[in-house]
Amino acid sequence: MADSDETDLLEELSEATCRRHLAAGAGNVGRIVLVPEGTIRIFPVNYAMHEGAVVMRTHLGDARTHLGGTIEALGGSGPVAFEIDELDLRYKTGWYVVVHGSVEHVTDAAEIQQLDALELVPWARGDRRDWLRIDPAEITGRRIRWS
Amino acid sequence: MADSDETDLLEELSEATCRRHLAAGAGNVGRIVLVPEGTIRIFPVNYAMHEGAVVMRTHLGDARTHLGGTIEALGGSGPVAFEIDELDLRYKTGWYVVVHGSVEHVTDAAEIQQLDALELVPWARGDRRDWLRIDPAEITGRRIRWS
Repeated sequence: MADSDETDLLEELSEATCRRHLAAGAGNVGRIVLVPEGTIRIFPVNYAMHEGAVVMRTHLGDARTHLGGTIEALGGSGPVAFEIDELDLRYKTGWYVVVHGSVEHVTDAAEIQQLDALELVPWARGDRRDWLRIDPAEITGRRIRWS
Repeated sequence: MADSDETDLLEELSEATCRRHLAAGAGNVGRIVLVPEGTIRIFPVNYAMHEGAVVMRTHLGDARTHLGGTIEALGGSGPVAFEIDELDLRYKTGWYVVVHGSVEHVTDAAEIQQLDALELVPWARGDRRDWLRIDPAEITGRRIRWS
């Protein structure tokens, strides 16, 4: 197994496995990527899962919250990627999961109430009253081994 | 200090501080983001620093290496973002740094020799004979506190 094929070293994960990683990591930090007007923006952010969607808190309308300002620049919705990973340099193993989908500002009062009940504490405190939801169009991931 | 302003909680880092984080993290994993044909792609990857540039190994021309294949789709170069972060959920503190620039396939023999001497061990082994270099056009970062 010394010089095994790279395919073996970047094994594709099933969507079910990716979803398990997403659920297990809820409360932790992922990275959301947006591309307003062709400029790549990436922000680390705490997230939770709700009915199969990735949800996170921000503050739209406050230019100081860079994620919020970027979502505003996108007109409140748009295509995004969301990434989580767990890479152990010591044991040379890990995985990463990427969600592709559209981000939307949650405006439905009943849904907001459900999300508030998740008690997701945002990383950077401030007044994070707005919820964003990424509805996954595609969920992919890879396990990385270094055999 | 209970309800301090969000600006305080997402303090901008100087470029010098960002570069110190990049240098200290060399050998570790960052995330490169590319947008070939409007599709956001994000890959975790080991990196090193060389003469102020972010460098990493991949294998162009092998469709199985997803980063390599994406660079090929970009025609060998293009705008990218590269992110590193260190976020401690327990102590509710951390930082992230984002490099914006253009990625290029390193083809100069003398430069390749210098990069090979860095002995950067790629995360996923395989035959990673190609070097990529991101020349930073902009380096930004934020410190996140949760006071």
